[in-house]
Amino acid sequence: MDKIFGGMVLLGVPLSIAGSLMHWPTLMMFGIYCLTIIALSSYMGRATESLAIITGPRIGGLLNATFGNAVELIISIFALKAGLIEVVLASLTGSVLGNLLLVAGLSFFLGGLKYKRQTFNEHDARHNSGLLMFAVIVAFVVPEIFSMGMDESKTLSLSVGISIIMIVLYLAALFFKLVTHRGVYAGKSEESPHHEEPEWTKGRAIAVLLVATLAVAYVSENLVHTFEVVGESFGWTELFIGVIVVAIVGNAAEHASAILMAMKNKMDVAVEIAVGSTLQIAMFVAPLLVLLSLMFNESMPLVFTVPELVSMVTAVLLAVIISNDGETNWFEGLTLLAAYVIMGIGFYLL
Amino acid sequence: MDKIFGGMVLLGVPLSIAGSLMHWPTLMMFGIYCLTIIALSSYMGRATESLAIITGPRIGGLLNATFGNAVELIISIFALKAGLIEVVLASLTGSVLGNLLLVAGLSFFLGGLKYKRQTFNEHDARHNSGLLMFAVIVAFVVPEIFSMGMDESKTLSLSVGISIIMIVLYLAALFFKLVTHRGVYAGKSEESPHHEEPEWTKGRAIAVLLVATLAVAYVSENLVHTFEVVGESFGWTELFIGVIVVAIVGNAAEHASAILMAMKNKMDVAVEIAVGSTLQIAMFVAPLLVLLSLMFNESMPLVFTVPELVSMVTAVLLAVIISNDGETNWFEGLTLLAAYVIMGIGFYLL
Amino acid sequence: MDKIFGGMVLLGVPLSIAGSLMHWPTLMMFGIYCLTIIALSSYMGRATESLAIITGPRIGGLLNATFGNAVELIISIFALKAGLIEVVLASLTGSVLGNLLLVAGLSFFLGGLKYKRQTFNEHDARHNSGLLMFAVIVAFVVPEIFSMGMDESKTLSLSVGISIIMIVLYLAALFFKLVTHRGVYAGKSEESPHHEEPEWTKGRAIAVLLVATLAVAYVSENLVHTFEVVGESFGWTELFIGVIVVAIVGNAAEHASAILMAMKNKMDVAVEIAVGSTLQIAMFVAPLLVLLSLMFNESMPLVFTVPELVSMVTAVLLAVIISNDGETNWFEGLTLLAAYVIMGIGFYLL
Repeated sequence: MDKIFGGMVLLGVPLSIAGSLMHWPTLMMFGIYCLTIIALSSYMGRATESLAIITGPRIGGLLNATFGNAVELIISIFALKAGLIEVVLASLTGSVLGNLLLVAGLSFFLGGLKYKRQTFNEHDARHNSGLLMFAVIVAFVVPEIFSMGMDESKTLSLSVGISIIMIVLYLAALFFKLVTHRGVYAGKSEESPHHEEPEWTKGRAIAVLLVATLAVAYVSENLVHTFEVVGESFGWTELFIGVIVVAIVGNAAEHASAILMAMKNKMDVAVEIAVGSTLQIAMFVAPLLVLLSLMFNESMPLVFTVPELVSMVTAVLLAVIISNDGETNWFEGLTLLAAYVIMGIGFYLL
Repeated sequence: MDKIFGGMVLLGVPLSIAGSLMHWPTLMMFGIYCLTIIALSSYMGRATESLAIITGPRIGGLLNATFGNAVELIISIFALKAGLIEVVLASLTGSVLGNLLLVAGLSFFLGGLKYKRQTFNEHDARHNSGLLMFAVIVAFVVPEIFSMGMDESKTLSLSVGISIIMIVLYLAALFFKLVTHRGVYAGKSEESPHHEEPEWTKGRAIAVLLVATLAVAYVSENLVHTFEVVGESFGWTELFIGVIVVAIVGNAAEHASAILMAMKNKMDVAVEIAVGSTLQIAMFVAPLLVLLSLMFNESMPLVFTVPELVSMVTAVLLAVIISNDGETNWFEGLTLLAAYVIMGIGFYLL
Repeated sequence: MDKIFGGMVLLGVPLSIAGSLMHWPTLMMFGIYCLTIIALSSYMGRATESLAIITGPRIGGLLNATFGNAVELIISIFALKAGLIEVVLASLTGSVLGNLLLVAGLSFFLGGLKYKRQTFNEHDARHNSGLLMFAVIVAFVVPEIFSMGMDESKTLSLSVGISIIMIVLYLAALFFKLVTHRGVYAGKSEESPHHEEPEWTKGRAIAVLLVATLAVAYVSENLVHTFEVVGESFGWTELFIGVIVVAIVGNAAEHASAILMAMKNKMDVAVEIAVGSTLQIAMFVAPLLVLLSLMFNESMPLVFTVPELVSMVTAVLLAVIISNDGETNWFEGLTLLAAYVIMGIGFYLL
């Protein structure tokens, strides 16, 4: 797997540069950009992993919590800069749906084909359920509903206020998990990580992280400008590109590792990636983008379209109910996948 | 009980035929049709039971899952044929509300008056909770919300897509329950069924099923054409007739057996009937009717009215929360009944 | 604490009378009224406590269930009389949000700073979850949604019908808790109350209750008439005054004792106050006000604004998910507080 990504980076980066300079056909470049970003993001993931092992669980947890969705964040910043606010909101929606339904669904389904019953830490699941409810059902629903009776500037004030509260709560959640209640609710999976060896040295990992981040930024900026042409060619709306395409590209590397973990019966890790990434998107990336957007021409309020919001709320309720008992099987995975496909059809037709 | 139904069939079928040929007063015929269908559906239930015992649990489960709501399906097909799409959607809503609130409510309440605490299999309850969430909150809410921004043909495409996915998932749920995970989550109630004796022989059961189905079809067709006059006479809207009247008539025989089981403290069976029947309506009957409606003049999209949808969603949330701990008492039953009455008043006034 | 409240009453009541007769500045009087009501309501709480101990658990439970929100009820009646229907509905909303998010949040947070993990009776939590779902999600949502297609008189009929059903169910819940299932789900906390000594004798408690109630009524009537001026001075809408200010004043004494209990690790009592008070507001005070309003010029339907309703529904879902495992910690408290602040900002900006 790592070798394939290595080859993709070696090929993809020069092709991306050449193609964008020589104005190769947009559809071809769209494909090259997407694959290159997926490969680069796998490098960023490995570098973060190595740094996390070297710096120990506390700072490591913080690193993972900050760089885990760096690719998504970078693509979104360039989309914001290009004024594509709808695409950014749609890709945030897509990340939430992709993590809770597609990734968790594939993990439960494929893992469940090998193992009859898979279990994960119930306490973590409940802790995360509360946060998912807070992030999606309180913090996303409130601005949506309240902004219906507000002018634009009040809507933005509300969005900024909520964003600050969410980031503070996100940091508090890290403090809770890594400091005050570290190991309090631990299951059996907590023992092994002490023996792990980092893949790269500290210096090398930082170098890889830096170079890959810069490369992702370069490719993302170009990718964003292909959306219009791609949309027209395939008959896709900006909404569909954001919810399905950008979300999958931005999270592909992460998704692959969650599914691999599920197939090794390491369900705790698979669930942690799927749900943890959702929380990071909702409680850190989304509010950060709202705050960053204040520096651009067009500010982004935290107001999704009604179908986006309803999809996220129903996805959270479904994920909470299904994962509540700390047990999964292939059928629960299939239920989540079916929900993803239904919403995908909906966004395609919209 | 069986004797009463026997007498009702012997009287009701000839009276239905005579009355419809001789154009007896519509209100009287409405009453005769309703009672006859209730009696016939008890025969269909007994025939299905016998066949299920003879063919063993796998095919038996499949039979129950297919014929369990046959009466409801037949009435709905004739209503579709008569172009009464609103009545069909309303009766689907009514079946969901009737099963989750009225039947479960009466079972919990009457059972709870006799026994202080009644328990049922927690694993099944959680499995079903996930499916209820999927069926009602994902599959019914998505077309409702997304269709607000769509034209009619896209709404229908979305409905057809969702219907196919739901039927596939329903079959997968049967495969999960009857094949791959049969007995995995079994409670104590799983032991007894081996000793059961079928009431009728295979040939007799098939004959009864066929004849009763044909009779139900005949009476249903006539019943459907009385709705307009009945509505005008009592000041009932089509919505109220569908949600309350058709739903109760279509499910009465089933309802009676659920309540009898609860009073014998066989809570597993009572819950299985109430929740299983809801799932069958939502995941099999409703999508099947959408697909069948493509052959009629007017196609039926999976788009309920907002009060119907909200009633179903709140009923599911209430039922999930109340049944989540695998324990019931009279007060929980009363809560469900109170919710049913509140919604009933709402639909009556609408 | 009691001495402070004693002093506040001795000062506040004469100041309230003097100020209202001599027309002192409205803003100052608003402050005096609020503080006086808070102090008086602590006396009412102590008198009810004493009476409850003297009369035994059954009648005591009934007394608590009736007088627990007497202050809120009295303020609301005077607001209704003054035609301030929006303020009444807003203050009901504010009581629900205040109890579920602010009080429970502060209790969990401050208690959690002292104790790593705090537990409370899981069975009670689940029983209450079902009732919260019923009261807020069924009984408040149904009139909201159904009334969209109704004229005013039907909306009122629906509200009256729902109100009667809710009061009946509330009385049934008391009967369940105090008679048929008393002690059935008891945890360890049930043992101690037998040794409790009443603070006051029966005669004294009744006298205090009567005098304090009359004083609260007098001050409330004056308080209600300051709202308009206060709103204009601070730029607060009537909605904000109702949701935040009235709700906090009406529940302050209660709130203080819940938080004190949490800090003594008596989590059962703290949760009982927060959730019990919410249920009392939703299932008894709100429907009673609807019925009482029929005697005034303007009747109050049970129809909240959309932001009010959505806030209550999300608060219930959040509280149910977070309290479902019978365990709390500081972070769960912070999550509830964050939700309260977000909604507070929303109502302020609206």
